[in-house]
Amino acid sequence: MPETAAEVRAGFRSGVSGPTSGLAPGFRQANLLVVPADWAYDVLLFTHRNPDPCPVLDVTDTGSRHTPLAHDADLRTDLPLYRVWRDGRLVDEPTDITDVWREDSVTFLTGCSFTFDSALTSAGLPWRYPGRNVAMYVTNRECRPAGRFHGPLVVSMRPVPSALIGTAFRITTLMPTSHGAPIHLGDPGELGIRDLSKPDFGDAADIQPGDLPMFWACGVTLQAAVVASRPPFAITHAPGHMFITDVREPQVAV
Amino acid sequence: MPETAAEVRAGFRSGVSGPTSGLAPGFRQANLLVVPADWAYDVLLFTHRNPDPCPVLDVTDTGSRHTPLAHDADLRTDLPLYRVWRDGRLVDEPTDITDVWREDSVTFLTGCSFTFDSALTSAGLPWRYPGRNVAMYVTNRECRPAGRFHGPLVVSMRPVPSALIGTAFRITTLMPTSHGAPIHLGDPGELGIRDLSKPDFGDAADIQPGDLPMFWACGVTLQAAVVASRPPFAITHAPGHMFITDVREPQVAV
Repeated sequence: MPETAAEVRAGFRSGVSGPTSGLAPGFRQANLLVVPADWAYDVLLFTHRNPDPCPVLDVTDTGSRHTPLAHDADLRTDLPLYRVWRDGRLVDEPTDITDVWREDSVTFLTGCSFTFDSALTSAGLPWRYPGRNVAMYVTNRECRPAGRFHGPLVVSMRPVPSALIGTAFRITTLMPTSHGAPIHLGDPGELGIRDLSKPDFGDAADIQPGDLPMFWACGVTLQAAVVASRPPFAITHAPGHMFITDVREPQVAV
Repeated sequence: MPETAAEVRAGFRSGVSGPTSGLAPGFRQANLLVVPADWAYDVLLFTHRNPDPCPVLDVTDTGSRHTPLAHDADLRTDLPLYRVWRDGRLVDEPTDITDVWREDSVTFLTGCSFTFDSALTSAGLPWRYPGRNVAMYVTNRECRPAGRFHGPLVVSMRPVPSALIGTAFRITTLMPTSHGAPIHLGDPGELGIRDLSKPDFGDAADIQPGDLPMFWACGVTLQAAVVASRPPFAITHAPGHMFITDVREPQVAV
């Protein structure tokens, strides 16, 4: 099984696909959003105004498919699955975006909660969605808009045994570039989520007796904003199918 | 003596001026940079790429002189002293910028080390520049550029008794929106600073036997970038003469 970020990316480049949760433990994972340069200021201001769902790790120079987060990577081929959007509508879900890449592209890479999953499991939190994608939900909370770019907050959810709630708070609070502390615990209704068994993205998790649902701001918020804001052209990763960087997440005892 | 941020701002609005270090303890202070909207993307990307000197607290909508950081404030009148720049040259230093304000202005408010001064003094650190402005120096380190916006890193310096160095690290590490941990301790030559008694901005501090100079990234980095990058028009605060927000800095025991 591939272990390092570079090995996992090489697999994706050669056509392997699938969700990245649990892959290359200890390496920081990232959401991807590509927009035309004309939209880059609105998106960048949106990420500033909504740092919980959109902690920026890197913004490329216009047209560049490279990032200092992984020097040998090509952002057009090294993710397992992409989504191509036109006027806010999903038009394709390819494993390679070389043929739709534009020279006026600006790429945003933002932090992902998958980065803290290995810290949570090493602290004893049970894995409630083995072999599946994390559950994600569109909430009733609107993000602070920026120019033309706006949309609802999206969250990911992990069931946490009540005895481990403090541990999960402590670990994730110290990882602000991976969304940081949970934004909600308990009643999904307060976020406008009606049925935990029907996530808007990803797969439902197993909720065991004694578990409480814990919600973190989610990078898919940027995709929801693409749908709401309808830029003429955008590319994102497919939910749960992240860019794995070469940045090692520091491990600290908490 | 005025105590709250609003009281101090009201004084500035009526013509009072002077450095803000030590004023309105516990309220977050901010650097100000106003640029034409055409330059806003480059500046915003520069702040993202240089988060230590430029931790963004707010970016206004184009033309707005208001910020959620202080609802009743007017950014054109409520700072003690401004600087007006044309093509990177300082052309005026007024206490009010109403008459030079442009409708295409975008204002950046970024964190300031003055915010942690009250935490440092309450932890027992001596105040080495009573009644004066903090010492600031242009370094030999270049910031990561963004489009047309580039320039050197500027630092502030505080002399710290060696027994209190750990305390100063602990306190400021936990305040990333006020520049966070020191970026250098000791030999000024490593930053290209030749003479601590001749700061580039502000006033020299008293260095006592047993003190070590401790350096933090400084918001004046944005002014140095204005000088280096020469936007056609810019307004900043005068060094040490900050915008005092209504945001209370949480106090924690460390």
